[in-house]
Amino acid sequence: MTTETATPESKIINGVDVTRMTETIRAIKSQPEIADFQFRASNTWVDGGENKIEVGNFYGAGAEQVREKPFNLTADEPPVLLGKDKGANPVEYVLAALSGCMTTTLAYHSAAQGVEIQGIESDYEGDLDLKGFLGIDPEVRKGYKEIRVHFKVKTEADKEKLLALAKNSPVFDIITNPTPVKITIETA
Amino acid sequence: MTTETATPESKIINGVDVTRMTETIRAIKSQPEIADFQFRASNTWVDGGENKIEVGNFYGAGAEQVREKPFNLTADEPPVLLGKDKGANPVEYVLAALSGCMTTTLAYHSAAQGVEIQGIESDYEGDLDLKGFLGIDPEVRKGYKEIRVHFKVKTEADKEKLLALAKNSPVFDIITNPTPVKITIETA
Repeated sequence: MTTETATPESKIINGVDVTRMTETIRAIKSQPEIADFQFRASNTWVDGGENKIEVGNFYGAGAEQVREKPFNLTADEPPVLLGKDKGANPVEYVLAALSGCMTTTLAYHSAAQGVEIQGIESDYEGDLDLKGFLGIDPEVRKGYKEIRVHFKVKTEADKEKLLALAKNSPVFDIITNPTPVKITIETA
Repeated sequence: MTTETATPESKIINGVDVTRMTETIRAIKSQPEIADFQFRASNTWVDGGENKIEVGNFYGAGAEQVREKPFNLTADEPPVLLGKDKGANPVEYVLAALSGCMTTTLAYHSAAQGVEIQGIESDYEGDLDLKGFLGIDPEVRKGYKEIRVHFKVKTEADKEKLLALAKNSPVFDIITNPTPVKITIETA
């Protein structure tokens, strides 16, 4: 939870500073409010299916965390979905988010348990029936019916252990369980 | 659902070709299987919290849809979360996905109803308590406790109508309702 770089004494596993992770857990136990994070994004619509997303500062570890500059992303739709394909589409970004989170969770939680990993590759597929979004069939949901994930992990650990570790992923939780989204709108 | 560009007779609202959208809906009603889409991503872990994501081809409209080249994304964690901040983190990607989807859904569904929109800006905040991910408190969920969205829309339509239209978003559905994620792992 500190921003110091690794000291010579730091224990690094899977590229994760386990010494700092252990210190973070100890710090949170004595001061639980530093575990409260708030992440943010802002979006500006361009036209049709195209929009620009900015991900900048966030709050965490008891302070506003300022990035030197924000990350910029573009979302669009492919021509077959009436867009210009200037970026991945939003449901593809969901798969990207899930992939990043399960991968990092596997690396971090394995490190915490002293499990070394030499490589992680993974593939994601999501099935979506457009009859939901288009309102053609009210019985069809608008989002993914199912997402399938396949991992190839270079490690000596067994598959059941890796599966349990990967399921600690926050994005896995967000997708597989209901997450409340509160919306307000102002018009001008 | 076709890949033709707009014809001079196409009716364009909010940058969306409403003529083609109407044709798409008609085509799906007579041939429902063309509504089945499969989106994909693949992920390669670099080190620690850093990983590379590729979003390329997908299946939809009854055929494999081939992009000229894939979209490449980087996910990482900020230093305070033991990463090198080379890209937005996975839970920030969730907000990006939600923002792109609600914005595009608002533009498309408004267009379908003949509602003109001149501008859409929106801000997203997600609250995450790290005690969940770190396994410090089993009562705390690993994902977002709550996401808040605020829209500023330039239009003459009323707010209640816009809210109802935006809720057709597939990513809003994926996040607010349970979506099954099936995981398989192979080790080497």
